[in-house]
Amino acid sequence: MELEQARKDLMALQEQMSAYGHAMGLMSYDGETTAPRGTAQNRGHAMGILSEIMYKLSTGKETVDLLEYLDAHKEALDQKEQRMVYLLLKDIRYMQKIPLEEFVAYEKFVVECQDVWHSAKQNSDFASYLPYLEKMVDYRIRFARYAAPDKDPYDYWLNEYEPGIDKEKCEAFFSTLRERLVPLIQQCAQKPQVSDACIKGDFPEDKQEALAYWLMDVIGLDRDHVGLSTTEHPFTTSLGSHLDERITTHYYPEDLSYSMFSVIHEGGHALYDTGSDDDLAYTALDGGVSMGIHESQSRFYENILGRSKGFAKFAFPKLRQLFPEDMAPYSWEDFYKAVNRVQPSLIRTEADEVTYCLHVMIRFELEKRLFAGDLKAADLPGEWNRMYKEYLGVDVPDDKHGVLQDSHWSFGAFGYFPSYALGSAYGAQFLAKMKETVDVDAALDLGDFSQINAWNKAHIWHFGSLHTPAEILDMTLGAPFDPSYYLDYLEAKCKDVYGL
Amino acid sequence: MELEQARKDLMALQEQMSAYGHAMGLMSYDGETTAPRGTAQNRGHAMGILSEIMYKLSTGKETVDLLEYLDAHKEALDQKEQRMVYLLLKDIRYMQKIPLEEFVAYEKFVVECQDVWHSAKQNSDFASYLPYLEKMVDYRIRFARYAAPDKDPYDYWLNEYEPGIDKEKCEAFFSTLRERLVPLIQQCAQKPQVSDACIKGDFPEDKQEALAYWLMDVIGLDRDHVGLSTTEHPFTTSLGSHLDERITTHYYPEDLSYSMFSVIHEGGHALYDTGSDDDLAYTALDGGVSMGIHESQSRFYENILGRSKGFAKFAFPKLRQLFPEDMAPYSWEDFYKAVNRVQPSLIRTEADEVTYCLHVMIRFELEKRLFAGDLKAADLPGEWNRMYKEYLGVDVPDDKHGVLQDSHWSFGAFGYFPSYALGSAYGAQFLAKMKETVDVDAALDLGDFSQINAWNKAHIWHFGSLHTPAEILDMTLGAPFDPSYYLDYLEAKCKDVYGL
Repeated sequence: MELEQARKDLMALQEQMSAYGHAMGLMSYDGETTAPRGTAQNRGHAMGILSEIMYKLSTGKETVDLLEYLDAHKEALDQKEQRMVYLLLKDIRYMQKIPLEEFVAYEKFVVECQDVWHSAKQNSDFASYLPYLEKMVDYRIRFARYAAPDKDPYDYWLNEYEPGIDKEKCEAFFSTLRERLVPLIQQCAQKPQVSDACIKGDFPEDKQEALAYWLMDVIGLDRDHVGLSTTEHPFTTSLGSHLDERITTHYYPEDLSYSMFSVIHEGGHALYDTGSDDDLAYTALDGGVSMGIHESQSRFYENILGRSKGFAKFAFPKLRQLFPEDMAPYSWEDFYKAVNRVQPSLIRTEADEVTYCLHVMIRFELEKRLFAGDLKAADLPGEWNRMYKEYLGVDVPDDKHGVLQDSHWSFGAFGYFPSYALGSAYGAQFLAKMKETVDVDAALDLGDFSQINAWNKAHIWHFGSLHTPAEILDMTLGAPFDPSYYLDYLEAKCKDVYGL
Repeated sequence: MELEQARKDLMALQEQMSAYGHAMGLMSYDGETTAPRGTAQNRGHAMGILSEIMYKLSTGKETVDLLEYLDAHKEALDQKEQRMVYLLLKDIRYMQKIPLEEFVAYEKFVVECQDVWHSAKQNSDFASYLPYLEKMVDYRIRFARYAAPDKDPYDYWLNEYEPGIDKEKCEAFFSTLRERLVPLIQQCAQKPQVSDACIKGDFPEDKQEALAYWLMDVIGLDRDHVGLSTTEHPFTTSLGSHLDERITTHYYPEDLSYSMFSVIHEGGHALYDTGSDDDLAYTALDGGVSMGIHESQSRFYENILGRSKGFAKFAFPKLRQLFPEDMAPYSWEDFYKAVNRVQPSLIRTEADEVTYCLHVMIRFELEKRLFAGDLKAADLPGEWNRMYKEYLGVDVPDDKHGVLQDSHWSFGAFGYFPSYALGSAYGAQFLAKMKETVDVDAALDLGDFSQINAWNKAHIWHFGSLHTPAEILDMTLGAPFDPSYYLDYLEAKCKDVYGL
């Protein structure tokens, strides 16, 4: 094999993979946004076939030979190529360990499983979902065992979503959080509750949509390359490359804040993805590197920026303009307090910043036990409800507002949830660093995200997946990850909102 | 090769092709409906790669050997398999004649060309579209020459959209129409014009959407398998199989009838496609056989059924319910007359039934001259405007309302337009036959499409592409195609509406 040709073949291979990724990503996106209800099986049929073709492309002799040749000559490759070869080989070695029939059956199963979850959630019908959930847990344990026979299956998946993370690190992290969060929540509870009346009401969908587009513009998304749709559960996806990014939201007429902060959250993901250097498009390095770093961006925009005093002051006149009657009795301070109200609740994606991590801890504990075989899927609703009572003091009225609320398990994403908490904590440490050179508060007062985005682009986004999470933290922070930044940040917020 | 294995391989090949078709069809659909404006190039990138893969799959030695083996053993195949092999070989022999690089470049070009047409139409800017249009004409002439060096290129494409049709047959058909349509239009013009005031006004999009879904239900579409979206230009597409069908519409607040009859028109296409026998899914026989038969269904539902007296009477109470103030001054008779008003106009898709075919004739004449080299693309706007004056007596104010109005040329569909007129005429002859066993007028009075749909399904839909258009006409009508049914139908309609 000749090196120059092999380098070209590497790019062509990645372009092919991105085309299949585009096709299958779009099919999923279409299934969530636009497709008629009865079409999941038809879509699963096509996705099964395409993933079989992609499996064969990825694990075929030609591809493996190419990548092993390049791996053997890695000193002749540039840094980007080295990382591409590493990431591709890592995926291929995983795929090679999964028998083809199981791989293809799984791809079809995911489509069905998401479809069943959708209906089950709508009807609060856990029983109809249970056999699918059981099968999904089996699949993910089995696939982890294929991939890393010597590793604990749950550790395997934790590390896939956030390289470098395992159960032990999560436990240490969560216990650090718990020590200061539990008393903090109690302190807030002892103070008079702030009102969230100004975000509750009857907010027409078309006005909420106008707000969503305004927010996308304000935070600096390029709407020529970032689209917005509605789905049951908000998400972000890249199609083919960072040049076509889609975010979704869900409008609840009775609650203005849900879609508003979903859009900023998903917008943070989209800023990260679309901030990849353009020469990374159609390669394995395009888009964000890990779920933890991804969530550090999405939750940074949603909370640290979106729920800040400055941004509340900046955004409130827009709310007044869109909802003049609803907003007439209120000031920006009311809005600021409403979106920072600390109140143990049922739904993770609607949780305030302070109680949020408890929602994540519950999922972490349940997943850990499921994967260790200590908990049966059939017992999940009961355990879910018990833990919500124990951790958050709330009674779960039905599974729609309990164990069926998140889509993650329906597409196999066990081990994903801790990234939300880790990312939140990364974000607070990024903020401290950013403030050394950017006047973040002044920027938020003006609603001017240009310097904030420029800092994130320079330190995080433009690399795409070139660096590991640990490298990004190290290069950007020049210090070890330290969750106390996050706890300090939350305590300051509570102090301000509740006058602790 | 072993026959039983070859039969299985034939099905597997078609399933693969349907998966690629699903992916690329969805990318186009997404581009028209949902994708952010700046993503055409990214989409073209993926489609270029997938079409190259599909080209290689289709024309690869393995596929060609398989199909030629089956073709050589066709006496051992059942009727469906024989037709599959015929249709697949036909496509492959076409693709084999197009050089791979040109085939792939063309697929990418189509995406760009549609994108440029979109903007050009929006801005009424023919100049920006001209180089793309010129290139598209060149492509289609060159591809026709590759495919059939001895055939006239325009004849080649006419026959592709409606097998059995050529320029000569079109000319004869159009001249038969012209003989009776021109005096008919003049006779209507001499009568007092009927009013279309009841369909003009300010009709909110959400109400029009509610009407669209109601119409889909009434004409018998299964909304679990047929979706509705909005696009600049309405169309229908199947994704992967007839189990996932999408129709689109465009809501004009000032004109109630545009979306209403678009939905019934596209709904007719969707009824035909989704009426395929289920065992045809994922094969070359799935969905309608030709554009002419397709339009015979879409225009049958839109006009013969949708603009009938019975349906006007049935639908009017729904319009009253949705638009109580607008409809208060009017009766169902006003509505019936409004949607059957004969009035030479600028836009084909908004034309009445009687002048409609003149719009088609103009396109036919222009395409004929373009393909013969007698007309340059640059001269199209002038010739378009001249012919609209000559045929329809209208002055074209700008290219948006003229030569840029249709999407067809932007995706290379030269030779498609005559199918609209042919289909309309087939439909009238089908109606006469249907009336021998179905009380169509009584069904329309009740808005009950079950018997009408059952007749169409039994005679036309369920075959998918098993039979040629000529076979369908022959089996269903038991008589040669005769445009006088259509002319009789139009004359009767004018007699009723204008009291000729």
